[in-house]
Amino acid sequence: MELTGEMLIGARAVRGTAGTVHGRDPRTGDALAPSYGLGDAADVAAAASLAAAAFGVYRSTTGEQRGALLDTIAAGLEEIAEPLVARVAAETGIAEPRVRGELARTTGQLRMFGALAREGSWISARIDPALPERTPLPRPDLRQRRVPTGPVAVFGASNFPLAFSVAGGDTASALAVGCPVVVKAHSAHPGTSELVGRVIQGAVAALGLPEGVFSLLFGDGESLGVALVRDPRIRAVGFTGSRSGGTALTAAAAARPVPIPVFAEMSSVNPVFLLPGALATRGAELGAAFVTSLTTGAGQLCTNPGLLFAIEGPGLDEFLGAAAAAIAEVDAAAMLTAGIRAAYDDGVSRLREHPLVTEVAAGPGSPGLSTPHLFTTTADAFLADRGLQDEVFGAAALVVRVTGFAEVIDALEGQLTATVHAAAEDLDLAASLLPSLELLAGRIVFDGWPTGVEVGSATVHGGPYPSTSDGRSTSVGTAAIERFLRPVAYQNLPPALRPPGLDDENTLGLRRTVDGVPR
Amino acid sequence: MELTGEMLIGARAVRGTAGTVHGRDPRTGDALAPSYGLGDAADVAAAASLAAAAFGVYRSTTGEQRGALLDTIAAGLEEIAEPLVARVAAETGIAEPRVRGELARTTGQLRMFGALAREGSWISARIDPALPERTPLPRPDLRQRRVPTGPVAVFGASNFPLAFSVAGGDTASALAVGCPVVVKAHSAHPGTSELVGRVIQGAVAALGLPEGVFSLLFGDGESLGVALVRDPRIRAVGFTGSRSGGTALTAAAAARPVPIPVFAEMSSVNPVFLLPGALATRGAELGAAFVTSLTTGAGQLCTNPGLLFAIEGPGLDEFLGAAAAAIAEVDAAAMLTAGIRAAYDDGVSRLREHPLVTEVAAGPGSPGLSTPHLFTTTADAFLADRGLQDEVFGAAALVVRVTGFAEVIDALEGQLTATVHAAAEDLDLAASLLPSLELLAGRIVFDGWPTGVEVGSATVHGGPYPSTSDGRSTSVGTAAIERFLRPVAYQNLPPALRPPGLDDENTLGLRRTVDGVPR
Repeated sequence: MELTGEMLIGARAVRGTAGTVHGRDPRTGDALAPSYGLGDAADVAAAASLAAAAFGVYRSTTGEQRGALLDTIAAGLEEIAEPLVARVAAETGIAEPRVRGELARTTGQLRMFGALAREGSWISARIDPALPERTPLPRPDLRQRRVPTGPVAVFGASNFPLAFSVAGGDTASALAVGCPVVVKAHSAHPGTSELVGRVIQGAVAALGLPEGVFSLLFGDGESLGVALVRDPRIRAVGFTGSRSGGTALTAAAAARPVPIPVFAEMSSVNPVFLLPGALATRGAELGAAFVTSLTTGAGQLCTNPGLLFAIEGPGLDEFLGAAAAAIAEVDAAAMLTAGIRAAYDDGVSRLREHPLVTEVAAGPGSPGLSTPHLFTTTADAFLADRGLQDEVFGAAALVVRVTGFAEVIDALEGQLTATVHAAAEDLDLAASLLPSLELLAGRIVFDGWPTGVEVGSATVHGGPYPSTSDGRSTSVGTAAIERFLRPVAYQNLPPALRPPGLDDENTLGLRRTVDGVPR
Repeated sequence: MELTGEMLIGARAVRGTAGTVHGRDPRTGDALAPSYGLGDAADVAAAASLAAAAFGVYRSTTGEQRGALLDTIAAGLEEIAEPLVARVAAETGIAEPRVRGELARTTGQLRMFGALAREGSWISARIDPALPERTPLPRPDLRQRRVPTGPVAVFGASNFPLAFSVAGGDTASALAVGCPVVVKAHSAHPGTSELVGRVIQGAVAALGLPEGVFSLLFGDGESLGVALVRDPRIRAVGFTGSRSGGTALTAAAAARPVPIPVFAEMSSVNPVFLLPGALATRGAELGAAFVTSLTTGAGQLCTNPGLLFAIEGPGLDEFLGAAAAAIAEVDAAAMLTAGIRAAYDDGVSRLREHPLVTEVAAGPGSPGLSTPHLFTTTADAFLADRGLQDEVFGAAALVVRVTGFAEVIDALEGQLTATVHAAAEDLDLAASLLPSLELLAGRIVFDGWPTGVEVGSATVHGGPYPSTSDGRSTSVGTAAIERFLRPVAYQNLPPALRPPGLDDENTLGLRRTVDGVPR
């Protein structure tokens, strides 16, 4: 597949005229061909208009049709696996084995949502049959289902060019429930975006679906991205990126004449709590394992463990010593973009120059690459300076030496994850922390590390503000569809007009709630 | 029970010092004793602080305990039914039989949420058991449940002093799932609010629950109400009232350092579509039935049918004639407050003076009371003036004479309900309208009237903006609990620490999803 540098607006390929951007090899800064033309407000309007026009047909497709679309996209990505993996690696500096893993996750995710679309119980059918004899008033027949909200804008993420981008989780879950999608590609991997976008465009055409089911735009966030969020035909937004980007889109969405929900994943330092028994019995082992998690993907994961709270006492020195030794062995690594590397360097400098922070270890440096850093500080210093819980996106972490956890937990902002390392003798302490951690984070990890998000039915990848803009939802796993649904009730609808899934016979074989009782 | 004019802050009764308000007989404007002292920022902080302190204990109570609280409140309201009904009628002008009906709905609602709390499957447990042998990576054990978001602020509504106020739907659903509640009473029925609030305060004490589970504040929306929404300990807001009030609270919530969701029900004209067959076969009958719905509660219902679209042709004149005749027979009625009556009079004058609107009928007037009004206009006039779809809160309605529905539906804002009257020969036309109506409204009513909201499992009382601030939720029925929940996942949690409902044995006997399959 030849890359053209064009946007995909419905069935067309369109060269944007509002400037250009190139993918770049992050190791060298060299531009990768082709150049990508950036879109403008007219392109946003064209894509949104097609999406709105497609919505009526697409939301009425069967689960089988939407499942076939998602399966076809997954198969199409596998067909171009070799050029796709090569382009991802070239544009992002992510090592090929990780890219292959992310591709498998992405196709697995697409098929998982395809199966969900086919199974169909996610409409959450509720049926309260009429009670004509009820007194003082008869009860009408009431049937409820969930319907898709409308066209969804999805913003690609820099750090997961496949799993959180053009054919990522938000796109898959929106398509599964009947929402057309307009993707704004991340400018750091335009070639990857085009490759994936053409697979989706081809699948939409192959299945005879309306062209507006999918469009792909290139452009900058502040102009094209905000225009997309403001377009009246867009009804929900999925975003993964920076806190400033997420809050700007959220503000734009709230200021619309008809506000819409924004599901923005923004920042998280993923606190880790090292309990005394765990430190005493396996401090060194934990230190080494921590560094593996910290440095995966050059630390550029949303769930990277950037903040640790360790009880002063036996094993803490062993933990820090083993972590320092492991960090010294980690090769310097390319970061996703020069901008991300510069921000990482700034964040490291800020910690290094902080009068109450001590640098414990740093990996071997190399020009143009990033190297992991480990710092420590005291509980008093941490509590005195809220800036010490700001995310440093990359493989930098701060260990706070504490005598207890209550005060520091109260000082923390909302997080995607919270992790506890506990030995058998720590279980009472761990149990006492759980209620606070439930309020702090969307996922609580025991005796593991937060990186590596399992994609399943029970997954929560989301959390209280500011880790996400709306902690009532997840961006990973089957529960992600909740973002793009709203309930509708039908009162005394003639049987012939009942929508699929709300018939008396339950011909679709769904799990439903009848008269308040799950069936 | 002697009314004292005090706020209820946890277990205390506190006289507010920031001004006073009286309940008033809306028929005479006479003040009703006692005067109510209005609260200030310190009272808000005191109530929110107690709520936050109570949250930890309250959210850990069993479903049985919360069910007992809700049942005790229901029984307590029944015990004071006579003085309560008398006070509601005195403060609101609502006729006693309607007040008794609303009381029954309120106690029924409390018990329904009590049963839901006890049954417990609303935590939506999802369990993906560990797969230690999976390749390339083992799967961790992941268990998800939904937890309460935190203390909820509830704003009482003027038009449902019981069912949407101190012990109304938002309070009941928040309490059912473990959220403490701080109510801001509506100033139009302070005595009713105190009576109900003391029942809840007493129930909290009788069951040995932390006092902060419930507080009741008096004050004006712009100062005390906004302060309550801005309090960092409040995590969600339920509101039923005006569009200006709802948008002000939504803006205040979005501007917080940590934004929170606001579920505001704001305005709806509840369009009714009169299809040609229905008009031709039963125009006169529909006209009379329409007036019954229009004038129920002096038209002061959120679901009042204020806008009708009727196909030009046989039966429309009969519809209008029967409606006019029925309106002429309707007694003038007291409205809830002098302010509401003034706004109604303004709205009626605006329609009456509109050059393209014709007055068809008005009920017999009486000083200080309101009388129903019926107007007609053309499709062109309706499409040319968006102001013609503004809600006139009260028993005024506008019939738009149309030749088709598509264009006017596209011009409509989001609604709580949409109603269709169709004869057998209209079914194809009705079917063609359904998809648009699903996008327009939260509840679609066939061959009935939108007033009279059934409280059940399948109920949706909510709808696209601006009928509510968040059309993904309902304020009535068991699905209302969704607003106050967020998901949390637990990864590799030691079995001894698993929260109730997430154990392997399912000792609570919940409906759960295991490995993606509902059980």
